[in-house]
Amino acid sequence: MDPVFAFPLHLPGPGSRQLLRALHGQLRAAILDGRLRPGQRLPSSRAVAQAYAISRNTAVAVYDLLLSEGYLRTRRASGVYVADEQAAAAPAGESERAALAQRHLAARWRDAIDGTAIVGGGVFRLGVPELSLFPFDVWRRLGARALRQFARLPADYAPAQGREALLHAVAQHVAFARAVACRADDLVITSGAQQAFDLLARVLVTPGRTAVAVEEPGYPPLRTAFAAAGATLVPVGVDGEGLQVELLPRDLRVICVTPSHQFPLACAMSARRRAELLQFARSRDAVVIEDDYDGEFRYAERPLDALQTLDRGERVFYVGTFSKSLFPGLRLGYVVAPAWARAALIRAKQASDSHSDVLAQDTLAAFIAEGHLARHVRRMQAVYAQRRVALLHGLQRQFGGLLEPLPSLAGLHLAAGVVAGAAVPAWVTRADGDPARPATLRRFQSEDGGRAGLVFGFGVADAAAIGPALAQLRHAWNG
Amino acid sequence: MDPVFAFPLHLPGPGSRQLLRALHGQLRAAILDGRLRPGQRLPSSRAVAQAYAISRNTAVAVYDLLLSEGYLRTRRASGVYVADEQAAAAPAGESERAALAQRHLAARWRDAIDGTAIVGGGVFRLGVPELSLFPFDVWRRLGARALRQFARLPADYAPAQGREALLHAVAQHVAFARAVACRADDLVITSGAQQAFDLLARVLVTPGRTAVAVEEPGYPPLRTAFAAAGATLVPVGVDGEGLQVELLPRDLRVICVTPSHQFPLACAMSARRRAELLQFARSRDAVVIEDDYDGEFRYAERPLDALQTLDRGERVFYVGTFSKSLFPGLRLGYVVAPAWARAALIRAKQASDSHSDVLAQDTLAAFIAEGHLARHVRRMQAVYAQRRVALLHGLQRQFGGLLEPLPSLAGLHLAAGVVAGAAVPAWVTRADGDPARPATLRRFQSEDGGRAGLVFGFGVADAAAIGPALAQLRHAWNG
Repeated sequence: MDPVFAFPLHLPGPGSRQLLRALHGQLRAAILDGRLRPGQRLPSSRAVAQAYAISRNTAVAVYDLLLSEGYLRTRRASGVYVADEQAAAAPAGESERAALAQRHLAARWRDAIDGTAIVGGGVFRLGVPELSLFPFDVWRRLGARALRQFARLPADYAPAQGREALLHAVAQHVAFARAVACRADDLVITSGAQQAFDLLARVLVTPGRTAVAVEEPGYPPLRTAFAAAGATLVPVGVDGEGLQVELLPRDLRVICVTPSHQFPLACAMSARRRAELLQFARSRDAVVIEDDYDGEFRYAERPLDALQTLDRGERVFYVGTFSKSLFPGLRLGYVVAPAWARAALIRAKQASDSHSDVLAQDTLAAFIAEGHLARHVRRMQAVYAQRRVALLHGLQRQFGGLLEPLPSLAGLHLAAGVVAGAAVPAWVTRADGDPARPATLRRFQSEDGGRAGLVFGFGVADAAAIGPALAQLRHAWNG
Repeated sequence: MDPVFAFPLHLPGPGSRQLLRALHGQLRAAILDGRLRPGQRLPSSRAVAQAYAISRNTAVAVYDLLLSEGYLRTRRASGVYVADEQAAAAPAGESERAALAQRHLAARWRDAIDGTAIVGGGVFRLGVPELSLFPFDVWRRLGARALRQFARLPADYAPAQGREALLHAVAQHVAFARAVACRADDLVITSGAQQAFDLLARVLVTPGRTAVAVEEPGYPPLRTAFAAAGATLVPVGVDGEGLQVELLPRDLRVICVTPSHQFPLACAMSARRRAELLQFARSRDAVVIEDDYDGEFRYAERPLDALQTLDRGERVFYVGTFSKSLFPGLRLGYVVAPAWARAALIRAKQASDSHSDVLAQDTLAAFIAEGHLARHVRRMQAVYAQRRVALLHGLQRQFGGLLEPLPSLAGLHLAAGVVAGAAVPAWVTRADGDPARPATLRRFQSEDGGRAGLVFGFGVADAAAIGPALAQLRHAWNG
């Protein structure tokens, strides 16, 4: 802290021609951003001159300039104050603001939409991975190398589709990890899975005309992206075999599914349903969006083939993300897109944000190519498998006869349905759960009904913490 | 390179139970991504066993598994080959692809839209800054620190509005650098200016109903973002004082301008026009988007106040970017938004890509807070000022009587109009210029007519290279 202002000033050395301008600019900035508050008295120009070892004349000239610009005012010759006008003149009244919002904001953005990030859950937080075992030293080293290479090239915008090295690395990764048939050119790099949904919604939806099936219960942020694009959402039920294909209405254009690990029920779509879904898409001329958000983590010997792998008619868009296998702050994901839609997706990416962060792309490309991703996923799979077992045992011990874990083979969460006839506390059936408790299934149902239950993330749940947390939860259950 | 395959295999140590699975997965991945081509003959299982020091049985078992899955086939007992089916079965025919695109892609994404990145220009490339003087060592150090701090926290999604430290740093930066009245909470961090345009278009445009004025000539990617949102674009002429406010039709809802440094003409909007524009917005109930993409670099003593600074009616959205002051690969920009529109913008950001890259945000926050941004801008301003003078002198020397530089006070490019009566080579009047030559003004005009001329970026034009490049261009002009 500086002696006379409660924030630091950065001034050039004495005698600099820049001094007046620097002092003026920094004080004006402090007034504009509120570090100097309206009505606040300023130190005297003498005190300022002394504190910063500048000439009195310079300090006086800066104050005069700020006075003439209206940023300061004098009061009864008792000193110099920050003018009130800044704060007073700018804001419109609340009613005027409401009117501006009403007239200028497109209707679908005016009011809150469900689909903000899923937060809360305490120990059983959903959708976030463990970072304590992440090889940050490797990431730092590869990041520094990417920066060195980047620094040698002239500045430029990058291709909207993605950096070439990353396209190749991701193609190998999905071919290996998920048996998804994919070459570099089939991919579009996105800023996380959310942007993949958003770009797909933009290119596949004609506002007011395109019907899109979403899983019920399902993932709210995906619904938001399609609703924002003007789609008509059609929630379709999910049972233990995944999306109930036989319930799909006929006039759908897009069907969104999470076949590896249904969100939130955690079940895998059966082989039969996968075949039926692809058959439906072919015969009814629909396309399928396969959201494989955490399918890298599997607890069965051989996973079922991805829909993208099974598809022979170019009808499946496969969406992946590095938010679960690496970390969500990275904001990198991808779409494996059929040839007929790729150019449109790349144009939509270009219009949305030109391209994704170059250094992050280059760092990730090296991280994958050098085998660190595969190694980290392998390591974390063992960790998550242990947590999953601890969770299943704990549920059996604490909630046997009350909650029944639904079968699942992959991912970072489990769902447990209330056993028929068991007494259920009111909070378990509510959509707006206590953020310190596991999310309720109801949170992910857009319509009333559906099975009551809880969703337990184990991405950040230390195995040793699971038992005590469940004991505490059981206590809350009893009320 | 490995001895028997033309790509490296990463196998666990001998005796590992993972060995079979690793070899199988990596060969399958190589088949799926094309490193092993359909019809390609594989080395014998004996050769594989020898090359990787694994048991013959393991190699045979992996081949058998791949054969049973259909990835390989045997041919006349002469060996094992990659199956052709992978390549042959998947792609639909071209006509089927065209039909899928026609039926499934929303009309506005089906065909190429103007507005891809502006590329080419040779020495006089537009819109890219000089990186050779960028303090990459500082960036690396701050990036490493951000990563260390990040590694200590549990993984999580970040607020869509932006990381708190960055919101505060940017607020101070714009208050200081541009006298834009702004507190942290007035900001939304975006992935570059392009995403700012995209989010604004999404929240302000009702498809088919909202008319948006854009400058003519103007910046194509901004037009793309608004067209993609379904806006009706209304090109409005620009003269030496900026947008011709008197030509604005009455039923506009949104007016997009580049007042500090018009793109591409490079002029500044006069104080009179600024006042008229704000008056128009108030009286006709329109809002203004002020795109200040490179206004940090100024060559006059005191810049005119930003529209956002002058506005007293909450009608101005101020868009800034770090693509010019730092580097385009960073993908960070921001909107200073009136209170009534902020929540909608944050929701749109959430739906678009959840939030921007966390490590890049944290690194930038420290870079600004520690004064490195201000220092770099100051330093680069001197460099660019020198290049600008070299360009003006060179134009006078080589193109006196042919091209007339248009007045400008800021930014990283200049425009020069063809002098009345001068002979003009055909390429100067075309929209699709030679990528080795400066961009033509025609490239940025959506309608025929308008003054012929060239646009000279000097962001990456070394002062010493400018003279020779202009001499060469003069040669091409004559020839």
